[in-house]
Amino acid sequence: MKDKDILLAEKKEEECGIFGIYYNDGCDDAHGEGATAAARLTYYALYALQHRGQDSAGIAVCNNGEISYYKDVGLVPEAFNDAIISSLSGDSAIGHVRYSTTGAGTAENAQPLVVKYMGGQMALAHNGNLVNISNIKKRLEEKGAIFHTSSDTEIIASMLSMKIAESKSVKKAIIETMKEIEGAYSLVILADKKLIGVRDPWGIRPLCLGRLKNSYIIASESCALDAVEAEFIRDIAPGEVVIIEDNGIEYMQVKSTGREGICIFEFVYFARPDSVIDGASVYMARYEAGRQLAEEHPVRADLVIGAPDSALVSALGYSTQSGIPYGQGLLKNRYVGRTFIQPEQRQREASVSIKFNAIKSEVDGKSIVIVDDSIVRGTTTRRIVKMLRNAGAREIHMRISSPPVKFPCFLGIAMSSKEQLVASYHSREEIREMIGADSIGFLNLEGLVKTLKGIKCGLCTGCFNGDYPL
Amino acid sequence: MKDKDILLAEKKEEECGIFGIYYNDGCDDAHGEGATAAARLTYYALYALQHRGQDSAGIAVCNNGEISYYKDVGLVPEAFNDAIISSLSGDSAIGHVRYSTTGAGTAENAQPLVVKYMGGQMALAHNGNLVNISNIKKRLEEKGAIFHTSSDTEIIASMLSMKIAESKSVKKAIIETMKEIEGAYSLVILADKKLIGVRDPWGIRPLCLGRLKNSYIIASESCALDAVEAEFIRDIAPGEVVIIEDNGIEYMQVKSTGREGICIFEFVYFARPDSVIDGASVYMARYEAGRQLAEEHPVRADLVIGAPDSALVSALGYSTQSGIPYGQGLLKNRYVGRTFIQPEQRQREASVSIKFNAIKSEVDGKSIVIVDDSIVRGTTTRRIVKMLRNAGAREIHMRISSPPVKFPCFLGIAMSSKEQLVASYHSREEIREMIGADSIGFLNLEGLVKTLKGIKCGLCTGCFNGDYPL
Amino acid sequence: MKDKDILLAEKKEEECGIFGIYYNDGCDDAHGEGATAAARLTYYALYALQHRGQDSAGIAVCNNGEISYYKDVGLVPEAFNDAIISSLSGDSAIGHVRYSTTGAGTAENAQPLVVKYMGGQMALAHNGNLVNISNIKKRLEEKGAIFHTSSDTEIIASMLSMKIAESKSVKKAIIETMKEIEGAYSLVILADKKLIGVRDPWGIRPLCLGRLKNSYIIASESCALDAVEAEFIRDIAPGEVVIIEDNGIEYMQVKSTGREGICIFEFVYFARPDSVIDGASVYMARYEAGRQLAEEHPVRADLVIGAPDSALVSALGYSTQSGIPYGQGLLKNRYVGRTFIQPEQRQREASVSIKFNAIKSEVDGKSIVIVDDSIVRGTTTRRIVKMLRNAGAREIHMRISSPPVKFPCFLGIAMSSKEQLVASYHSREEIREMIGADSIGFLNLEGLVKTLKGIKCGLCTGCFNGDYPL
Amino acid sequence: MKDKDILLAEKKEEECGIFGIYYNDGCDDAHGEGATAAARLTYYALYALQHRGQDSAGIAVCNNGEISYYKDVGLVPEAFNDAIISSLSGDSAIGHVRYSTTGAGTAENAQPLVVKYMGGQMALAHNGNLVNISNIKKRLEEKGAIFHTSSDTEIIASMLSMKIAESKSVKKAIIETMKEIEGAYSLVILADKKLIGVRDPWGIRPLCLGRLKNSYIIASESCALDAVEAEFIRDIAPGEVVIIEDNGIEYMQVKSTGREGICIFEFVYFARPDSVIDGASVYMARYEAGRQLAEEHPVRADLVIGAPDSALVSALGYSTQSGIPYGQGLLKNRYVGRTFIQPEQRQREASVSIKFNAIKSEVDGKSIVIVDDSIVRGTTTRRIVKMLRNAGAREIHMRISSPPVKFPCFLGIAMSSKEQLVASYHSREEIREMIGADSIGFLNLEGLVKTLKGIKCGLCTGCFNGDYPL
Repeated sequence: MKDKDILLAEKKEEECGIFGIYYNDGCDDAHGEGATAAARLTYYALYALQHRGQDSAGIAVCNNGEISYYKDVGLVPEAFNDAIISSLSGDSAIGHVRYSTTGAGTAENAQPLVVKYMGGQMALAHNGNLVNISNIKKRLEEKGAIFHTSSDTEIIASMLSMKIAESKSVKKAIIETMKEIEGAYSLVILADKKLIGVRDPWGIRPLCLGRLKNSYIIASESCALDAVEAEFIRDIAPGEVVIIEDNGIEYMQVKSTGREGICIFEFVYFARPDSVIDGASVYMARYEAGRQLAEEHPVRADLVIGAPDSALVSALGYSTQSGIPYGQGLLKNRYVGRTFIQPEQRQREASVSIKFNAIKSEVDGKSIVIVDDSIVRGTTTRRIVKMLRNAGAREIHMRISSPPVKFPCFLGIAMSSKEQLVASYHSREEIREMIGADSIGFLNLEGLVKTLKGIKCGLCTGCFNGDYPL
Repeated sequence: MKDKDILLAEKKEEECGIFGIYYNDGCDDAHGEGATAAARLTYYALYALQHRGQDSAGIAVCNNGEISYYKDVGLVPEAFNDAIISSLSGDSAIGHVRYSTTGAGTAENAQPLVVKYMGGQMALAHNGNLVNISNIKKRLEEKGAIFHTSSDTEIIASMLSMKIAESKSVKKAIIETMKEIEGAYSLVILADKKLIGVRDPWGIRPLCLGRLKNSYIIASESCALDAVEAEFIRDIAPGEVVIIEDNGIEYMQVKSTGREGICIFEFVYFARPDSVIDGASVYMARYEAGRQLAEEHPVRADLVIGAPDSALVSALGYSTQSGIPYGQGLLKNRYVGRTFIQPEQRQREASVSIKFNAIKSEVDGKSIVIVDDSIVRGTTTRRIVKMLRNAGAREIHMRISSPPVKFPCFLGIAMSSKEQLVASYHSREEIREMIGADSIGFLNLEGLVKTLKGIKCGLCTGCFNGDYPL
Repeated sequence: MKDKDILLAEKKEEECGIFGIYYNDGCDDAHGEGATAAARLTYYALYALQHRGQDSAGIAVCNNGEISYYKDVGLVPEAFNDAIISSLSGDSAIGHVRYSTTGAGTAENAQPLVVKYMGGQMALAHNGNLVNISNIKKRLEEKGAIFHTSSDTEIIASMLSMKIAESKSVKKAIIETMKEIEGAYSLVILADKKLIGVRDPWGIRPLCLGRLKNSYIIASESCALDAVEAEFIRDIAPGEVVIIEDNGIEYMQVKSTGREGICIFEFVYFARPDSVIDGASVYMARYEAGRQLAEEHPVRADLVIGAPDSALVSALGYSTQSGIPYGQGLLKNRYVGRTFIQPEQRQREASVSIKFNAIKSEVDGKSIVIVDDSIVRGTTTRRIVKMLRNAGAREIHMRISSPPVKFPCFLGIAMSSKEQLVASYHSREEIREMIGADSIGFLNLEGLVKTLKGIKCGLCTGCFNGDYPL
Repeated sequence: MKDKDILLAEKKEEECGIFGIYYNDGCDDAHGEGATAAARLTYYALYALQHRGQDSAGIAVCNNGEISYYKDVGLVPEAFNDAIISSLSGDSAIGHVRYSTTGAGTAENAQPLVVKYMGGQMALAHNGNLVNISNIKKRLEEKGAIFHTSSDTEIIASMLSMKIAESKSVKKAIIETMKEIEGAYSLVILADKKLIGVRDPWGIRPLCLGRLKNSYIIASESCALDAVEAEFIRDIAPGEVVIIEDNGIEYMQVKSTGREGICIFEFVYFARPDSVIDGASVYMARYEAGRQLAEEHPVRADLVIGAPDSALVSALGYSTQSGIPYGQGLLKNRYVGRTFIQPEQRQREASVSIKFNAIKSEVDGKSIVIVDDSIVRGTTTRRIVKMLRNAGAREIHMRISSPPVKFPCFLGIAMSSKEQLVASYHSREEIREMIGADSIGFLNLEGLVKTLKGIKCGLCTGCFNGDYPL
């Protein structure tokens, strides 16, 4: 282990993926290799959740109450190998992939977090962002608590442990803890020989329940269930606690103090298109957003293309609705990742010609509609427009399948400073000029909300209109 | 360095990407960081060629005749970091990415190969496969030559060195060597303070010439020129040698003993769609193949999808021609790579649900046309069909944008054994049944050839019809 | 970071080395490289303390109250390199080397431990072994504390934090904590912009104070002061607390509840011979032990040799006193370490011919006195005797410069189980026969105590006579 | 594998250790673990030869003519682990440890070197330094040979291969090669299902033959035989070739063109004291050198100490002869190695207080004789003298158990430049003053030669008197 880290005082925003399984199918399962089946299924599921975080990966397993774990910086294939997986025996497991906004991802805050408490050992994996963290930390420190990391997760573990020490009940402690912490949190916990799933009362981050034969599974997105060929049961409700143990499954419900609201950006950008979240298909939402966009912002053009990969489905929708042919005008390099050496140091734009390339034979001489999912800073967009022009595009019409991002998010998206948001301080025309497009169109919030057909949960649209559920 | 390897006697097929630059633009270039500009540009270009080989990567630079190099197994970002690039000073550079058919990619055969010979040092990077290697090796060994590796590249270097010792001229030696070696070879060489590019007389593998300000570039595909924002000059002709040095550029031409023929599989599968090879756009070739396929094998259906990523463009062509809407019915997991732990060991199929996932909301209840670029073994295809059925597809019509692969290739494609080729021993109907589709259609060779609009070179179609140019 | 570890419930014995420096000499110091002078001096000091622990190494530095650290398994040169040291800026530093009795040394328990508490950050490095740990842990857990490791150090940190939360004073908290924890502990702590040294009230483990120009230093042994060319001031007294900060140095004293007693095994085996501990020279103690041994157990022989390295000085003393010539009859292989692959797996003896070799030309035909420092299990000793016989030794007289180890130690020496101690269950004659010597002689405890000339502290001789200070 | 290296044109001096075994004892051997017994025994033997080279280590095994190998930079324990050893199946093996004078030890020149030649595969490990290398290289390059490394070993392999191609006989080729190459070389070779040992006609570097049950062994020093509990048969004679294969052992002899002469520095410094080389015990030679030194340079003093570790035996001899008591006045830190970060960068001296420490309680107030084996540059010696003075030494009398090193060595010792040799340009009095001793005495060459009792080979004393055997 290398364990160098500066304990940072500042708050960090994070998007993460979490997964948990209580394995009840012995060694005869298709994926099973005996005692490590839980760890192996978690490993595969983390591949399916990798888009939610590429900075660190970890798995903890529980074997008769004893927890062992492994976590490391990097992608799942960088952190794990067969020997490591083979050492993780246990019939329940939780896993975590993490995106960190603070640089290359420090090891200290990798998850799951494993600690000892009065009742033995506990492992936690967390997706979200608490907002009243400094108050809670202060209260805990005044009772003498020490912290090894700067993560929300350790704060939750510490409070949980305090509450268990008071009430002598893990279940009561979870309910008590949920009453005190505010913000976005989806949690999977191994403790007391149970696998516990928790979704915050506002339901900001997704969490769902599945089954593989006799084994229960909790996951950030349904695509992780598909990856292990498990069946989707239902979404875990805002404020719901799911407790899985040997003799079955149990549910508890905490009442929200505000209104429910799943982060709408999950549909716009975070989630994988093959996931279904709170009743709405991400793929369909994006396709409909493209159609809606074509209705709201029609244009005459020869070709519709999407910014790979997140906007391809919306571009398809735009093409269908408008009748303008869809093509693949931009190619994305799959190999540019975490460790890519930026050309010219601080000059982020320069690397766009490696990350993306225009397909000249498709683009040359044409009037192009390019669909993107959102504009946050706008720098990559400007460069892509320039690249299309260099490839011979006659006209470039930028269409964004969501409204302008005007408000910072404190619940988990990496856009907490208003200065970074180009739409906070600029009009649409200014943005158009800045990125160099011939026209620009943003989908209305109303239109965007309409795309979430079948959704069974309220929405947090704070980054678009400043209206947060808490 | 870890240097464990068994020298293997057997031949290995390889697909690779090569790149070379003779840098003449001092430190003021946009990408340049002084003395390592050549290495840095090569590094970026290797990202653009990464699709041609993911098993090892290497760069050699020449600084006033002194060659230094670095190579390692893995992807470009795994092999290189900033410190390594910063240590590679020199004004000419060559780079290589390698796909090895023999397991995880051994370090021994990583390229460029750097050797000392009479005239100093020489570095070579090679894409291709020689066919008369054992004869040549025997002849060299009988003259007392020793070999450290089992690569064609070392054979070429050894013969080149023998010829230089005889003729005292690097240029003559190259011509003499080209007369003796048979097979596919595109080469970049640093020797005698020159950067030399060589394309075999049959032109099996692509090679092109570009310019970045005053610097000349040689690359396997034009997309590598785009990555460094260089200008495409022209394809290097079959049998042509390009010699770049301080006082300019020079060309030599060797006559072919057979007919010219670039590997048609470059257009079908190998090359990146944004490349233009021997006058033909890969993107357009694939799009046209889809259209042609729709003409040859029409069907009534609700949706056209492509097997990601290589068949997406052909699927689009099929959709346009047929009028059946195009959609994204399959999602490919970008993170499954070299080090993915296969579930259930030898059972290759099991991992398909992690590598791919069907988008149920798009597929459910529909009759689907799925376009793929080729069928070699057929195992992945069968699993994808099953996955689409599980997602609710009513009918599945498989359309392949190339003819059945019936003949083994000894010139560089990983299909040298006839037993592995499902189309060698099975009828189309048998293949259809095996993969579980409702219908199947392969593009005719004639139709495929027609798609290569503007092509300025003959074709090797050996794997489809057994007709090899040598 | 790799952070895989099973939290172990059982207690582990450990011998360790600790070091702390409060650097006040700016950048002009001979060793200084600006801001990392404190870390660099600690790095060098850890080399000098490496004999006290080879399983992990760590350094924490404090820069204006902000603590950064690095720790890893392995020797100091395995854990650290120049880049790491260069990243550790700060004007105070503590370091730790650790020997773990449980296998290869897990990363989790590597030190220093760095935590956040009410007052900011705190780093601790600990040498010793608490005896009432489970009571304390239970009490802390009942207050809701969570633990990340199974180390005494975290228990101490947690209790300290609780006491600080109660008293709002670091100094009071240290005194209060010392009243509750029982056992051996020497500590260096960075907290509250102070460097704090603590020695337990019984004084079981050594700790001394030094000065380098204007900088104060705390170290396990005086040899670490020599390594950084610092001046020895004095030993820190049992129960003493030394607090160093910007405006000087301060001392506090806690009264022992039992009698004082430094571990006599520090002189027999642990400490480096160039150290002076509590007023007694380790070198002189060993030399005198050899002389005393010659008086107590004289024998006629041709040659005196010592078991390398710990018994060489005693052998010299035996030779001087007896008049029998001293020679180097055994050679020790310096390279056999932590990662040596044991021949024949579980058969520990087999590796002795690699770890040691007899020098036949010195030994052949002679009657040999071989001096060793102690016999714990006796297995290595038996093999060495056999090796000397094979080299031609005519007679072999074993002389041990300490009494038989009969009692387990719970204060830090790796001999906590009576079953492992050959002298617990066997007479001297049985031991002689078991190891195959012609005669055997152990130094009396009385004689051993006499060798500690000038010692200013009581002694713990528990492992020899069962008499523990607490 | 990381394979970054600049092919260096300049010659490098090297001291190395080599070992070879032809294993004939099946799986029932004490050390054996089936098919890897040869590799395992080689691994243990390399530990015993580690003092001859710490920069890289390697093992090659031959299994029915197929050679596999592993080599890496660093110590044996750094380069090898159990998994690697377990992968090296074969019934014959050779091993190598290497000291490189050029920095940290590059991977490229690590040995054994494994190549393919006309007859299959060949592995070579080499200890020595050729002197006519550039002529030979030129001749080989003119025949078209290419070289991957800058090592003598590859030159030998290339010439051997040329000679085999000519004569079709490995044995003839070895004899022919020995006639052409000049300089120091001891070789072990795996080729043609044989294990071959070669010692150059001058016998500069040692090489001996041993037996373990039915298995033959070749090693640089007899201590490697002891390590694997093998029996010493005899030294391999200068110019002798030993060929071991299935049906027994065979010897060939090449006549020297000059006189025989084993490097006298093997006895002074290189070899391990428990080795016996060409009939002379290294331990006894050093002990006698100390006695002789006391006769030639007597002095009145209180204590004799040796510079650890190489001069301890000579110091003992001085003490015995002079009657002045022997003591351990200096302690050497075992952990300071290859990766130690030098304090103050280029200032080599500064680290001496970490590498060595004086034992004040032994040294204080005394007149000291300090014995060292040689003075090459003199910088470490000066610092040690200063350290003893600081520890209170009243007088310091330096005694060197060999003559002044006045002449550069081109046969393998790292002292090829006369400028580095302090004794080349300074009188003894100047040296005394430079190092700060009260008196100095060097052993006469005549006296040194006398110490080699029983030696059966001539001597190379070139570094002392300029008289080289070739």
